[in-house]
Amino acid sequence: MRVFMFEKPLGMRDTLPDVYKTKRALREAMMAEIETWGYSFIETPTLEYDETVGAASAILDQQLFKLLDREGHTLVLRPDMTAPIVRLAASKLYKEGCPLRLAYAANVFRAQQREGGRPAEFEQVGVEYIGDGTMYADAEVISLMIFALKRAGLRDFTVTIGHIGYVDALFFDILRHEQRVETLRRFLYEKNYVGYREHVKSLPLSSIDRDRLLRLLTLRGGEEAVAEAKAFAMTEEEHRALDELKQLCEHVKQYGVADMVKLDMSLVSHMSYYTGVLFEVYAENVGFLLGNGGRYDELLAKFHRPSPATGFSVRLDRLMEAVGEQQRREKTTCIIFSQERFAEAYVKAEEMRRKGEKVVLQQVAGIQDMDQFTASFDDVVYVLGKRGKDER
Amino acid sequence: MRVFMFEKPLGMRDTLPDVYKTKRALREAMMAEIETWGYSFIETPTLEYDETVGAASAILDQQLFKLLDREGHTLVLRPDMTAPIVRLAASKLYKEGCPLRLAYAANVFRAQQREGGRPAEFEQVGVEYIGDGTMYADAEVISLMIFALKRAGLRDFTVTIGHIGYVDALFFDILRHEQRVETLRRFLYEKNYVGYREHVKSLPLSSIDRDRLLRLLTLRGGEEAVAEAKAFAMTEEEHRALDELKQLCEHVKQYGVADMVKLDMSLVSHMSYYTGVLFEVYAENVGFLLGNGGRYDELLAKFHRPSPATGFSVRLDRLMEAVGEQQRREKTTCIIFSQERFAEAYVKAEEMRRKGEKVVLQQVAGIQDMDQFTASFDDVVYVLGKRGKDER
Repeated sequence: MRVFMFEKPLGMRDTLPDVYKTKRALREAMMAEIETWGYSFIETPTLEYDETVGAASAILDQQLFKLLDREGHTLVLRPDMTAPIVRLAASKLYKEGCPLRLAYAANVFRAQQREGGRPAEFEQVGVEYIGDGTMYADAEVISLMIFALKRAGLRDFTVTIGHIGYVDALFFDILRHEQRVETLRRFLYEKNYVGYREHVKSLPLSSIDRDRLLRLLTLRGGEEAVAEAKAFAMTEEEHRALDELKQLCEHVKQYGVADMVKLDMSLVSHMSYYTGVLFEVYAENVGFLLGNGGRYDELLAKFHRPSPATGFSVRLDRLMEAVGEQQRREKTTCIIFSQERFAEAYVKAEEMRRKGEKVVLQQVAGIQDMDQFTASFDDVVYVLGKRGKDER
Repeated sequence: MRVFMFEKPLGMRDTLPDVYKTKRALREAMMAEIETWGYSFIETPTLEYDETVGAASAILDQQLFKLLDREGHTLVLRPDMTAPIVRLAASKLYKEGCPLRLAYAANVFRAQQREGGRPAEFEQVGVEYIGDGTMYADAEVISLMIFALKRAGLRDFTVTIGHIGYVDALFFDILRHEQRVETLRRFLYEKNYVGYREHVKSLPLSSIDRDRLLRLLTLRGGEEAVAEAKAFAMTEEEHRALDELKQLCEHVKQYGVADMVKLDMSLVSHMSYYTGVLFEVYAENVGFLLGNGGRYDELLAKFHRPSPATGFSVRLDRLMEAVGEQQRREKTTCIIFSQERFAEAYVKAEEMRRKGEKVVLQQVAGIQDMDQFTASFDDVVYVLGKRGKDER
């Protein structure tokens, strides 16, 4: 069972120079936008205790990379950044005065079960807005995500917004039991609408309740979806959630991003800690989720600091695919010199570098295959021989 | 054996906003310099196979964080970046034509045995220059490190340069056996010169050999140290190593950084893969190693691609301590608004943000303790009430 010399663990990737540059440019663009909104970037450790941060995360246990430390505690490679930031906010930062606006650009880890191209380590850029329960906070987080994605160069994307409080209120009112609710919720977060319909039809319900459940799938689109849901809402919880969504829509309009968002009352996330407004962002040209977020008003309580909170995270690898590799070729010049003419070559390199140009200074004796080596540069300057003119 | 809610695993740290900014500025400065020298940044996975990359690294086994994957392979959290980059260079990049100039800014992991403030995860910025065995390559790497550190704002530091090939040649010529050589080498890399002297005096050696071993500790300073060593060198290997150092000194002079370097013929590293020139950088104002590097001409052969190589790495946490926290306070303005005046507040925020200023836009209803919250901002603007003038 030997490992081949060049193999990497399942789901692990190298990032080569061109992709590195693209990723960095996208990260910097998002960070720049996030910073102008007054968010502070922080970093947390790669390893955390399973008992605290591992348990608070919404990632399935089988997706956690675990190891034991010397004292017998189980450590996890952080599967997301929300739980670590909540730990940090609850312990160190809380005294600074809420609301807190924190941000990160960090790798997270999710163990993969089999080959198939899913990365086990990927970078997320995101924010956590802690200590503000108003709908303004949700609107800020959603708008900031949209602004940051636009600044990174993403065009043609949609943010789908729902409210888990609304879905739960509706489901519990009709089904009463957590397990039955969970079954139905699962169809939704798997986006298996055919399965959902069939399952609802198989339940022993009044025709009114069946219609309430089936209608959920049609409550989509603009603000009118809220009004429609309102017309059929029967519980106080439904009304409260819908009022929140209505208010959110107002704020989002004021941010000038209403054309980028779409309501979907059936939206449910695999992230189990969401408690209110939640959202997902998809790019038109690629089939996958770029990022998501939502309100998690109960997570801080797990760290003994009950507090409302909301946030978003965007996957940088997927954003890169959606934006496409940018052809921002940066010119690199190679100056090839012989030892006796180093001084000349160096003056030339120094001058160009001072202007910010990229210059490789290469002694000719260090090159094995001249054609192969020079092929990767945009410009090659030779400073060879005892003296004489430079050739290009 | 429960973990307290806010604890982090041994040696793991959070990076709060101010430190994050300082670290980022230092990283960016070093990266900018490294890029103008034509090096390409890359990223490798956090997890690697122990069998390949773990085995190739120079870090002690007990310092490796290990875990098992589903197939029973042992994985390690990368303890340094040299071995992963060598894996990558040997597999994917080699065909691009040597020499290769690669760079990284990445976290590495070293398990700590006990409390005491040593970090188990820290960031290194460094380069690997692969496929060039000339002394020019060593000079470039050392000079680049100096330029990058200066660009990051470090003043008053010294790069100590030695040659492991010289030390080994001298030791083997006198002691003959690897184990005896290793004992003596250990005194040197622990910088235990008293222990070294005592040990040498206890050995059953001719007075000539004893003097050769004791003189090693005095061979320090400028180029004259090479000349002095030359005068007493008895083997071809010693002479070859000393000729290399002489040539290196010439190149370093041409780079204009001779005043930053100092020779120390007794320099030995804990990194076991070095084969030739090696170096360490210390800042005057702090007692610890900021970074190190050297030639590792045999590591590529472990990945079936024999090739000379050299590189350096600098620890960002230590560089930060040496440079000192920069007082680059960036002003953040907070605009506090009431819901009905959001539009006004937003126009104001937008305008400032477009100029790159940091602006928190905060709905008044989301604030619990106004005094505590506003204390962290440089400027607070209130846009409250139904209409009326803004207050500052």
